[in-house]
Amino acid sequence: MAGFDLAEDQDAVFEELVATAKKEHVDAIIIAGDLYDRANPSEESVKRVNQMLFRLNRQEGFPLLVVSGNHDSGVRLGTGQEWYAATQLYMRTTLKDAFSPIVIDDTQFFLLPYFEPYEAREVLGDPSLTNVNKAMQRISKEMVQQFDPTKKHILVGHFFAAGSAHSDSETLVNVGGLDAVAVSDLQPFDYVALGHLHNRHALDDAKVQYAGSLLKFSVSEAAQEKGVYIIDTATMQRRFVSLAPLHDLQHLTGSFADFADPTNFSEAEKEAYTALTLTDVEVIPNVMAKLRQVFPRLIGLDRKRHVDLGKVVQTNVKLAPTQLLGEFFSQVTGAELSEQQLTWAKAALTKAKGED
Amino acid sequence: MAGFDLAEDQDAVFEELVATAKKEHVDAIIIAGDLYDRANPSEESVKRVNQMLFRLNRQEGFPLLVVSGNHDSGVRLGTGQEWYAATQLYMRTTLKDAFSPIVIDDTQFFLLPYFEPYEAREVLGDPSLTNVNKAMQRISKEMVQQFDPTKKHILVGHFFAAGSAHSDSETLVNVGGLDAVAVSDLQPFDYVALGHLHNRHALDDAKVQYAGSLLKFSVSEAAQEKGVYIIDTATMQRRFVSLAPLHDLQHLTGSFADFADPTNFSEAEKEAYTALTLTDVEVIPNVMAKLRQVFPRLIGLDRKRHVDLGKVVQTNVKLAPTQLLGEFFSQVTGAELSEQQLTWAKAALTKAKGED
Repeated sequence: MAGFDLAEDQDAVFEELVATAKKEHVDAIIIAGDLYDRANPSEESVKRVNQMLFRLNRQEGFPLLVVSGNHDSGVRLGTGQEWYAATQLYMRTTLKDAFSPIVIDDTQFFLLPYFEPYEAREVLGDPSLTNVNKAMQRISKEMVQQFDPTKKHILVGHFFAAGSAHSDSETLVNVGGLDAVAVSDLQPFDYVALGHLHNRHALDDAKVQYAGSLLKFSVSEAAQEKGVYIIDTATMQRRFVSLAPLHDLQHLTGSFADFADPTNFSEAEKEAYTALTLTDVEVIPNVMAKLRQVFPRLIGLDRKRHVDLGKVVQTNVKLAPTQLLGEFFSQVTGAELSEQQLTWAKAALTKAKGED
Repeated sequence: MAGFDLAEDQDAVFEELVATAKKEHVDAIIIAGDLYDRANPSEESVKRVNQMLFRLNRQEGFPLLVVSGNHDSGVRLGTGQEWYAATQLYMRTTLKDAFSPIVIDDTQFFLLPYFEPYEAREVLGDPSLTNVNKAMQRISKEMVQQFDPTKKHILVGHFFAAGSAHSDSETLVNVGGLDAVAVSDLQPFDYVALGHLHNRHALDDAKVQYAGSLLKFSVSEAAQEKGVYIIDTATMQRRFVSLAPLHDLQHLTGSFADFADPTNFSEAEKEAYTALTLTDVEVIPNVMAKLRQVFPRLIGLDRKRHVDLGKVVQTNVKLAPTQLLGEFFSQVTGAELSEQQLTWAKAALTKAKGED
């Protein structure tokens, strides 16, 4: 969230994750990509991720199954991976390494990092793999050939699977029909643990599951419950365990008067990352500063729209300027222009034309 | 060198280093800092260094003793170091980790990464450590307390030691008396293997040695022989083994006519990174392009100066403009202004004044 350092929120949810893993006695932990939010992360972020991997693997002793996501640089994240395997920290950051499964107890894990179609064409020597869907069909076939029939088979991946919704933390560029993987092509696996989308409900499938992000990273995720899935490899049943954030992220709608009164909100509500939508129509001087006194983690502020702007404008493109203004005013405020306001508007329009 | 990708030169000298290590049956390899030339190296550089460390340690089986240099980010370079030790890749990137020695056979190795005085004050809890020299005295004392009297004691460091010269690849900012370590403070060690300066002859000491860089990185290093030292820990005798570069770096002085004739130079000379100093005084149109036809790796071009400019200008600041010009002309060309040239100069000066 712009302007806020999420370090303490990340540390807090990480501690919850560690506690959950210990309480549940998990045999391994899957991290399905996007350990970082950019290809060249800050030194501070590198230090934090290094410490988290060290803690989970070396101090708590959990085997880790990690792939790189589209936000990670495979090269940078992959530094040291040849050494990590010795303590069961299994990291895959290039497609060519994805085809030899990791075996833990009763299960073969296929670790498939985020990849681009050109990599699939190169690695598999097949120029017909022009999109992610075609590539995944081929990759899936290759992996099935490695299946040990006495084991379960879990795919860990980081891609957009067809049918899943998306939050606005994800860009839309690659979320098209051709650049999505058809869930049907994932059916050879007993379970598919996916990263990429932040919403754990992005997909509704019997064996394909997005874990979702550990924290809410945008206002569109305000209503989402965040956490981890515990998977039983004997039955392939999964169970969601929610993780409570240090500070929640909420989106509230109401009047400035309500929001400006701190007695209306609990401590947790006031400390949350907060986006506010005001129902007021008046000008409120210094509105951000006033609301930040109640909500110090104010991340967004807008006004309630009374009509869908896009729709109305499209059907009224031929209205006269004052009519257009009247429409706009009523959409934004829910009220009509007064006679006095209309007089002002006409005077301003006349003046503006005269200055052409 | 600006404009040239040194990747193939680096790969070639690295192969020579590997061959030398194998031929000499070394028990370990010391890398005394500056694995990178910047804190946030390119993905390409990260990939190359990762591959080199993997090759030396995991494929060839050499124990490695590595510290970070002033050009490295300790955090980024240190990624994975907790795992590396399992295969005897010992990497130290923070001062606090410098005090527990690595023991290989008959020798304790103290790995001291590049550090700033503030880190020494923090780690050692001593506010009096206001410069590198004071800090090193204290660090040295701490290390001596860890000395096993039945072993030899080698310090691996990355700093400027007093008395050493420097090349212009090193900035002068921190090369002052207070920011240098006195060689006398290093005497408790049986041997001190230093990184930082590119010139292996930077210091002339019985037990303190800069290895120097593996390649010539600037014109000022043209005359330096590059390579590695083989140290016998039984006797602490050292022996230099030179490594021949794929392309040498040379600085030649002569006339344009000589340089423009390719038959005057061997293939190796023509393929070398080359700085040329021309003795000519005439204007030579398109001189760079013409010389690059003979020396494709031309990295520098200047004209021979016949007098030390700085010195002369300082003693002649009160000369008349035409006299100053005459001095300058003779310094640059070694000749006097002709009558015709003087007439042109006077006309130009008159015109310039008139246009004020």
